[in-house]
Amino acid sequence: MATLGYVEYPDASPEVRAVYDDIMATRKTDWINNFWKALAHDPATLRRTWESIKQIMAPGALDPVVKQMIYVAVSVTNQCPYCIASHTAAARKAGMSDQMFAELMAVVGMANETNRLVAGYQVEIDERFRT
Amino acid sequence: MATLGYVEYPDASPEVRAVYDDIMATRKTDWINNFWKALAHDPATLRRTWESIKQIMAPGALDPVVKQMIYVAVSVTNQCPYCIASHTAAARKAGMSDQMFAELMAVVGMANETNRLVAGYQVEIDERFRT
Amino acid sequence: MATLGYVEYPDASPEVRAVYDDIMATRKTDWINNFWKALAHDPATLRRTWESIKQIMAPGALDPVVKQMIYVAVSVTNQCPYCIASHTAAARKAGMSDQMFAELMAVVGMANETNRLVAGYQVEIDERFRT
Amino acid sequence: MATLGYVEYPDASPEVRAVYDDIMATRKTDWINNFWKALAHDPATLRRTWESIKQIMAPGALDPVVKQMIYVAVSVTNQCPYCIASHTAAARKAGMSDQMFAELMAVVGMANETNRLVAGYQVEIDERFRT
Amino acid sequence: MATLGYVEYPDASPEVRAVYDDIMATRKTDWINNFWKALAHDPATLRRTWESIKQIMAPGALDPVVKQMIYVAVSVTNQCPYCIASHTAAARKAGMSDQMFAELMAVVGMANETNRLVAGYQVEIDERFRT
Amino acid sequence: MATLGYVEYPDASPEVRAVYDDIMATRKTDWINNFWKALAHDPATLRRTWESIKQIMAPGALDPVVKQMIYVAVSVTNQCPYCIASHTAAARKAGMSDQMFAELMAVVGMANETNRLVAGYQVEIDERFRT
Repeated sequence: MATLGYVEYPDASPEVRAVYDDIMATRKTDWINNFWKALAHDPATLRRTWESIKQIMAPGALDPVVKQMIYVAVSVTNQCPYCIASHTAAARKAGMSDQMFAELMAVVGMANETNRLVAGYQVEIDERFRT
Repeated sequence: MATLGYVEYPDASPEVRAVYDDIMATRKTDWINNFWKALAHDPATLRRTWESIKQIMAPGALDPVVKQMIYVAVSVTNQCPYCIASHTAAARKAGMSDQMFAELMAVVGMANETNRLVAGYQVEIDERFRT
Repeated sequence: MATLGYVEYPDASPEVRAVYDDIMATRKTDWINNFWKALAHDPATLRRTWESIKQIMAPGALDPVVKQMIYVAVSVTNQCPYCIASHTAAARKAGMSDQMFAELMAVVGMANETNRLVAGYQVEIDERFRT
Repeated sequence: MATLGYVEYPDASPEVRAVYDDIMATRKTDWINNFWKALAHDPATLRRTWESIKQIMAPGALDPVVKQMIYVAVSVTNQCPYCIASHTAAARKAGMSDQMFAELMAVVGMANETNRLVAGYQVEIDERFRT
Repeated sequence: MATLGYVEYPDASPEVRAVYDDIMATRKTDWINNFWKALAHDPATLRRTWESIKQIMAPGALDPVVKQMIYVAVSVTNQCPYCIASHTAAARKAGMSDQMFAELMAVVGMANETNRLVAGYQVEIDERFRT
Repeated sequence: MATLGYVEYPDASPEVRAVYDDIMATRKTDWINNFWKALAHDPATLRRTWESIKQIMAPGALDPVVKQMIYVAVSVTNQCPYCIASHTAAARKAGMSDQMFAELMAVVGMANETNRLVAGYQVEIDERFRT
């Protein structure tokens, strides 16, 4: 169980239901995943988080599938099992193929390796990168 | 100074020079950044790391600019100053605009926020995300 | 099972039992949680860790409930499931309400977001913050 | 320099100035720190981030000084130099004494230590912590 | 299940089987652990990762048991459950005793604590450490 | 400057001087590095941290040079510049050669890479690793 449990739709306040309705309408689904049902104990955070995600993940200069893959890259680096599972599912739904996933993992793994080689060798920033 | 100092081209062994030459040819530049000059104290790691990066960052199912943005996303999450500076430069060279950078940062920031909300609320993985 | 298993009270050496007894007396409980039973394989670390925690978590300039919430903030940022579960329980026992928990999570999430925006935008420390 | 530079007040758009004005009014100061001047290249993120922080850091069930100390705890765990410098300053302004700071550091250090002992010994969550 | 499932030996391509055979021969075992069976969906990454690990973990200036303990230290710091389980097993096989494990954990815990004290107190690098 | 500044020997209380004296005697040096001079604002934490480090880093089942390399591995993974600089210096003093350092970095980099491949591919712990 989540810390405070999950708020199911029938038990939700009108304020929470309004967010749930917008999530389902925006995502064209008929269910709410556990993340939102856990946050619903704090309606202000629920609304703020959903409004932020809706704005940030919408199409812009970056495609939605690219945004979802970046979300996966962060979640993998932080090693957050729920976040990896939910955003890998979202990235697939947005069009990520097996090959795209494999390349994503290769880049994420490599970046985590070189980040530490840089730190351990105490590499200084080149002047050309400072501009 | 890096831990073991930097190996400049004129002081490099033939084995190291061969890697330097391939880096400059592949990247169409005439200089070597500090990361490689620090790694050059360990030629086996220098070669292995360069060969891996060359393969991983080449065009594939993902565009090079997307791969560089994923590299930035990991480096920002790890808060590695050298890696952020060098890969932001590489991403710009590969075509990342100011707007694309801003959206990248917005997603990375948001993902780091929700990763912690998930952990703190102890949210469990939904069955639908397990398949 | 923990790496080396758990040391139960009846199987514990007098040295380990003395620490267990002090934990139960200090916390006014009649049980020992798994963390201590796993550490008991290394009595020196068991004693040192318990003595440190007992000193650090005692009332001081900060209230015990504030200290427990700070412990949760770190554990959530590190995404350590055991630590989140045990210190959230301890924080509740020390007086943390649902509303306090929700505000704690909101701050922790936001801090993790802005930490990355700072890194990605490569923001420099203002002179006024250096004094 | 930050990645995209800093947007100073005289160069800011009316939209950005409105946020700057609100930051200064809310904080009762006459200057804007670098974080906001870097974010100002992305007015939507600037506004969203400021509105979130303003709401989250306001007095509630937790005192502002406690919230600022939690912000410091996260920033220290993530080892973000800018965030540590700016939020330590904010915490002091909100009333954190040297003694409170020292206790904060002791708890943050200890939590980071035990988080790893838990992981390394592969300690499982006690049933009593699951409710 | 892993994201893309596991590739069992009978279902593997000749390219993947060659890597599996080399893993079993090098390790003198008759089974393949899940990590490799998950990576096998991306044969290039499977081969590159195995070749790198085989080279890096071989005896050199550092003993294999020391290398495995360093691997555990990183995995514990990152709190990666699979990595802790698999490399603790490998370290034991390479000769790590219970006492060595306990000392390893004590150092890893302490290092994670002092890393944060350093960050929080904003300690600057001594001139003597810069050479 | 460190948050609270540094406590120099002539300005130190007898309690702090006693710790400084023990550090210099144990390490056979005639100076105190910044870490201890920053912690000295909180004599209880200064003493506790020094006593812990002295016990943990002493020769045991693991050699001092191995312990220092493990300290470096953690500090590199956490990307703590001060900790990397000071413990790399300590490891060298304890006998770490350039070749040992290079192998240490190779293992640390690789471990950080595979930690993320494991997370991203959502690899489950093999039964054989659970015993």
